[in-house]
Amino acid sequence: MASTMQDFPLTVTGILRHGTTWYSGRKVISRTADGYREISFGELGTRVAQLAHGLRQLGVSTGQRVATFMPNNQEHLEAYFAIPCMGSVLHTLNIRLAGEQIAFIANQAEDSVVLVDMSILPLFTAVLPSLTTVHTVVTVGEGDPGPLAASGKSVIRYDDLLEGQPTTYDWPELDEKSAAAMCYTSGTTGNPKGVVYSHRSTYLHSMSVNTANAIGLVDGDRVLAVVPMFHANAWGQPYAAVMAGADLLLPDKYLQAEPLVDMIELHRPTFAAAVPTIWNDVLQFLHAHPERDISSLKTVCCGGSAVPLGMMKEYEQHFGVVIRQGWGMTETSPLAALATPPPEVTGEDAWTLRASAGRVACGVEIRIVDDAGAVLPNDGKAVGEIEVRGPWITGSYYQNADNAKFHDGWLRTGDVGRVDPQGFITLTDRAKDVIKSGGEWISSVELELCIMEHPAVLEAAVVAVPDERWQERPLAAVVIKNDASSSAQELRDHLCDKVARFWLPERWTFIDEVPKTSVGKFDKKHIRSLYADGVYDVVECRD
Amino acid sequence: MASTMQDFPLTVTGILRHGTTWYSGRKVISRTADGYREISFGELGTRVAQLAHGLRQLGVSTGQRVATFMPNNQEHLEAYFAIPCMGSVLHTLNIRLAGEQIAFIANQAEDSVVLVDMSILPLFTAVLPSLTTVHTVVTVGEGDPGPLAASGKSVIRYDDLLEGQPTTYDWPELDEKSAAAMCYTSGTTGNPKGVVYSHRSTYLHSMSVNTANAIGLVDGDRVLAVVPMFHANAWGQPYAAVMAGADLLLPDKYLQAEPLVDMIELHRPTFAAAVPTIWNDVLQFLHAHPERDISSLKTVCCGGSAVPLGMMKEYEQHFGVVIRQGWGMTETSPLAALATPPPEVTGEDAWTLRASAGRVACGVEIRIVDDAGAVLPNDGKAVGEIEVRGPWITGSYYQNADNAKFHDGWLRTGDVGRVDPQGFITLTDRAKDVIKSGGEWISSVELELCIMEHPAVLEAAVVAVPDERWQERPLAAVVIKNDASSSAQELRDHLCDKVARFWLPERWTFIDEVPKTSVGKFDKKHIRSLYADGVYDVVECRD
Repeated sequence: MASTMQDFPLTVTGILRHGTTWYSGRKVISRTADGYREISFGELGTRVAQLAHGLRQLGVSTGQRVATFMPNNQEHLEAYFAIPCMGSVLHTLNIRLAGEQIAFIANQAEDSVVLVDMSILPLFTAVLPSLTTVHTVVTVGEGDPGPLAASGKSVIRYDDLLEGQPTTYDWPELDEKSAAAMCYTSGTTGNPKGVVYSHRSTYLHSMSVNTANAIGLVDGDRVLAVVPMFHANAWGQPYAAVMAGADLLLPDKYLQAEPLVDMIELHRPTFAAAVPTIWNDVLQFLHAHPERDISSLKTVCCGGSAVPLGMMKEYEQHFGVVIRQGWGMTETSPLAALATPPPEVTGEDAWTLRASAGRVACGVEIRIVDDAGAVLPNDGKAVGEIEVRGPWITGSYYQNADNAKFHDGWLRTGDVGRVDPQGFITLTDRAKDVIKSGGEWISSVELELCIMEHPAVLEAAVVAVPDERWQERPLAAVVIKNDASSSAQELRDHLCDKVARFWLPERWTFIDEVPKTSVGKFDKKHIRSLYADGVYDVVECRD
Repeated sequence: MASTMQDFPLTVTGILRHGTTWYSGRKVISRTADGYREISFGELGTRVAQLAHGLRQLGVSTGQRVATFMPNNQEHLEAYFAIPCMGSVLHTLNIRLAGEQIAFIANQAEDSVVLVDMSILPLFTAVLPSLTTVHTVVTVGEGDPGPLAASGKSVIRYDDLLEGQPTTYDWPELDEKSAAAMCYTSGTTGNPKGVVYSHRSTYLHSMSVNTANAIGLVDGDRVLAVVPMFHANAWGQPYAAVMAGADLLLPDKYLQAEPLVDMIELHRPTFAAAVPTIWNDVLQFLHAHPERDISSLKTVCCGGSAVPLGMMKEYEQHFGVVIRQGWGMTETSPLAALATPPPEVTGEDAWTLRASAGRVACGVEIRIVDDAGAVLPNDGKAVGEIEVRGPWITGSYYQNADNAKFHDGWLRTGDVGRVDPQGFITLTDRAKDVIKSGGEWISSVELELCIMEHPAVLEAAVVAVPDERWQERPLAAVVIKNDASSSAQELRDHLCDKVARFWLPERWTFIDEVPKTSVGKFDKKHIRSLYADGVYDVVECRD
């Protein structure tokens, strides 16, 4: 039986129209070198139309990819809307990748035009000669685009591209399943793999972000989007904020603790999102500057790697800021889970749930499977690889026939962990980081969190290293705080009553900084290779 | 360019799976003659599977309609999930319609099986002989189904249908655009018209209800669903609550103020929804019983007809309950707008927005058009018929070729009003109730609200009546409170500084009750015909 409902597509255009029409007075505020600049959502709508006209004049056609090489600012946001709404595909290039990875990505995606921020022009200029499909570079911001001239590509300033263009655009009717944007995973193994979001997946993800069980942005909220817009759509904040009528605060390249606190103090965001490292930096800064004020912040979304419980407690108890841990990845748009305990769970039980990776979001289905692919119970005990499915989960990679990441219509996330009967997920490892000691699994993530609970420890990474007797054993790589000291023995003693005896690492190394990937995650592959190469001083510590 | 996202359908099955898996401890509490009965969401999932097996045994097949003739209770909720999830179509019959309308509806929908609550069996028995396609009646609750035997239909008790059935069901994979449920509009002119909701529209509507800018149900909320489940899916509450993990409180047929307040006091809902008449009754009851406690209620959603400002203020100031006015209709699933002011608007300005029909919800697009179909500006001044479109808006009626309600892909709502630049809708009339006096429009709705602000007035309906000089003039039909008195002159004086001079009614009639339709709206067609037939005593009052 057919329904009588309208066949109305879910599109980014729908978000744009809703936000810029009914919330035309809301603001987009971008940090600059010496202050801030701001436009209203109404002006955003106008400029988005102008950008679409400009790109059309450059020959950008339906389905063609337009890349961005940009920090989080107003022009990046304009690209977020203009490119998908005109029927083309927004490709956010990760500016932190190595040049050869950027070239691989841009060439595979066949990017035609690239929007480049002048502040990171040298990074881009170096890679430009390798970009075989790019015909035009649009430069954003002030500065000398001279170095680009040698490339033989057309070069045009962003402001010139918009100048004199019509302020409305007759947006095309789009198939909701057509591509809206693409983003490559920053995989630590092999070439990056492309995920292509559809208009439908982006719309549904934004709606899910805005459900009250998730982040629940409302009209008048102010969202400080610290997560890079080239990283899984800045966790969906730009689209969700425009949909909800929430102001967007964009820090551009000013991601250090001080300028972030400046922006919080002056522009008073109610919500912010960033990886734990950023919040750790901000916390250290606030300790050194107790007069600074972050009281506008109510909720902070944090993820990408495990969020230390101590940091969450400190933010909540000292600053009234609720840190909400989330879980997801480029392949999941990214929101898949958020660690909000049921209201009747309080005290330490609530903190236990808060410390989990999150509770599965409505619209996402989840299961765990063993090595043989058999589904395990969600009993909070069984450990397996987490698989997800749903309308904003990827089902394949762009021009990549490797199906190892897919299993009967589910995405194999590569994360290993437990799921409890209420849908709370506890991660024990990345599948590739699992430590298998004498046939038993040791959770590197739980060891890291326990070590980081020690007051002298700033950061700790645990990786598997070869062991003659047990095949694999954990190595703990620890960063001690500037003003503190500790020892392998002290840290091992600290772990004694927290984890199983056979988990206790015998190998410890003290380092200045944990190596991280381009998106701020612990780069365990790199740590393992540094260990293999004998770069680390390793302290042996046994009973 | 194709996206790489999974082709994952939006279905009622997804809501069922999410709610009953991850929120298995949440409750469904139904009122009974002498108390309450309760099941968990986990048990709900089990019973839904059993009902689906039972219906399959009765021969119900994919796409076939299964009707309900039921108040709001647990079994009705079970039908809400079992029937769509098995691929059949839930058809909620309006128990308040006349027998011949019910027969028309059930026959046009070709209902195969009907679930009937024993408490309203006589209503149903009277109409059963006219139901040509129904082969089986499932009786819910205790009592003698004897009277049904004469019909020649199969009769089976609901509990017997579920008894011994498997407690899981291998739910079919469904096309999200296939029909999930149908509901007929209670049109006051012509035959009722069928709206067929899809799985997709139901899923999206539930998600929209749960966005924080809308109702935003969260895990642990308790929802008192007073709006009948046969009326536009009880405004979407059953699906939205299960999706969010919010307990559902179902009052069955006990809709009078006293049992409702009993249920609020004992089971402590945080949210409730019903038409203004119900909340008016509850308010009168609370005045007579000041010791009663409704303090658990935070938000009440109210709509179906204009919500008097005085009532909203009284609930907020005396009981801390925020009444949130909404706008929608069977054709809009029904949520299309909700009257939440921006947070920076306060005081009387906020009340003005609170008194509007609502602000357009994300996912719904809105415009107003003049008599010739030209689009008018959303300037808060222009008045026209409101048209809407979106993924949960109907685009046609079931087996009804009348396209007068559709205009270039938009639904003509039949409501007339203004839209302001922020998307707030002010209704001035139903298109068919518009009063056109000497070529100028008079808003019957605004007149009603102004009259109802007078302390002596319980209810007031204003309709157009023929006038020799002005073609049409307003007639005010007023219900005075039990313990109060007033006069046409006094009420006219009360209006003097509130509305334009030419709006002031000359014709007044004092009545015991405003005639209402089956869903509690003022039945203006009936009022006009009573006036035409000379049934009313009319007081003439001029300057």
